[in-house]
Parts: sequence; structure tokens; C-alpha cells
Amino acid sequence: MEGLGLGYLGAGIGAGLAVIGAGLGIGNVAASAAEGVARQPEATADIRTTMIIAAALIEGVALFGEVICVLLALK
Amino acid sequence: MEGLGLGYLGAGIGAGLAVIGAGLGIGNVAASAAEGVARQPEATADIRTTMIIAAALIEGVALFGEVICVLLALK
Amino acid sequence: MEGLGLGYLGAGIGAGLAVIGAGLGIGNVAASAAEGVARQPEATADIRTTMIIAAALIEGVALFGEVICVLLALK
Repeated sequence: MEGLGLGYLGAGIGAGLAVIGAGLGIGNVAASAAEGVARQPEATADIRTTMIIAAALIEGVALFGEVICVLLALK
Repeated sequence: MEGLGLGYLGAGIGAGLAVIGAGLGIGNVAASAAEGVARQPEATADIRTTMIIAAALIEGVALFGEVICVLLALK
Repeated sequence: MEGLGLGYLGAGIGAGLAVIGAGLGIGNVAASAAEGVARQPEATADIRTTMIIAAALIEGVALFGEVICVLLALK
């Protein structure tokens, strides 16, 4: 029972840490994208596509981490 | 009981960490968006759409993390 | 009983961490919004709407986190 408890603890902390990484990463990308759109509004489509590709990559890693935490939480 | 308790601890800490990530991330995006709107008010719609796309992506990861914490908290 | 105690510990720490995230995030947005309004007072309405959208998103995640901590605290 103690062992399962440590797993649950890890699942909770890991889920939080994964969101920190994804949040800071996507936030950084999108902040620069917003500044870029403000500087060159006619390049909006290109800037937004670049941002979405990067955000999707970050999202992919984050969801992988979250799935591991789900596996631990459902033990 | 000890094991479940560790899960509750993880749920609480994880929920807090997830909010840190989402808060800092969305805050960073929106800060740049506000500056961008101030610099080019005529690009407001583009900037705001970019901001909302990014915020929704961050929000998605954060809610996934929070759901894991709910799973742990309701064990 | 020890297990419940760990849950209470997590509820307290998590509630605090959530406020850190929401406070820094909304603070960052609003600081840039205030600077933007100072630079372009005629764009006040656009800047303020952008700020309120972002702050509401952060607030949503933070309230979700706090609800998890309430669940833990009322166990």
C-alpha cells in the first residue's frame, strides 16, 4: 500500500511539472508570435502556422507525460 | 490509508503546480498580446486570435493535468 | 488518519501554489496592459478586452485547482 501511495504522489507531482513545462514553453512561443504579428500584421498567417507547429510539438510531449501520470494514478 | 494519503498529497501539489504553469504561460502570451495591441491597434483581431489559440492549447494541457489530480483526490 | 493528514497538507500547499501561478500570470498581463494603455490611450478598449479575456482564462484554471484543494480539505 505504501508503494502504491508513492506512485500516486509521483503521478500528481508529475502531472503538475508537465503542465509547468508545457505552459512556459507554449507561452514563450506565443508571446513572440503575438509580438511578431503586431510588428508585421501582413505575415499573420505564416507566424501563426509556425506557432501552432511548435505548440503542437510541445503539446505532444506534455500529453505523453500526462498519460504516464494517468497510468500511475489508475493503478 | 497511508498510501491514499500520499495520493492526496500529490493531488494537491500537482493541482498547484499545474496552475503555476498555466498562469505563467497564459500570462506571458497575453502580456505580449497587450503590448502588441498597444503598438498596432489595427491588428487587434489577429493578435487576439493568436493569443486565444495559444491560451487554449495551454489550457488543454492544464485541464488534463487537473483531471489527473481530480482522479487522485477522489480515490 | 495519517493519510488524511497528508491530504490536508497537499490541499494547503496546492492552494498556495495555485495563487502563485494566477497572481504572477494576471499580474504580468495587467502590467503590460497598463503600459499599453499609457502608450496608446485611444486603444484602451481593445487592450482592456484582451486583458480581461486572458485573465478570465487564468482565473478558470486557478479556480479548478482551488476546487481540487477544497475537495481534499473537506475529506
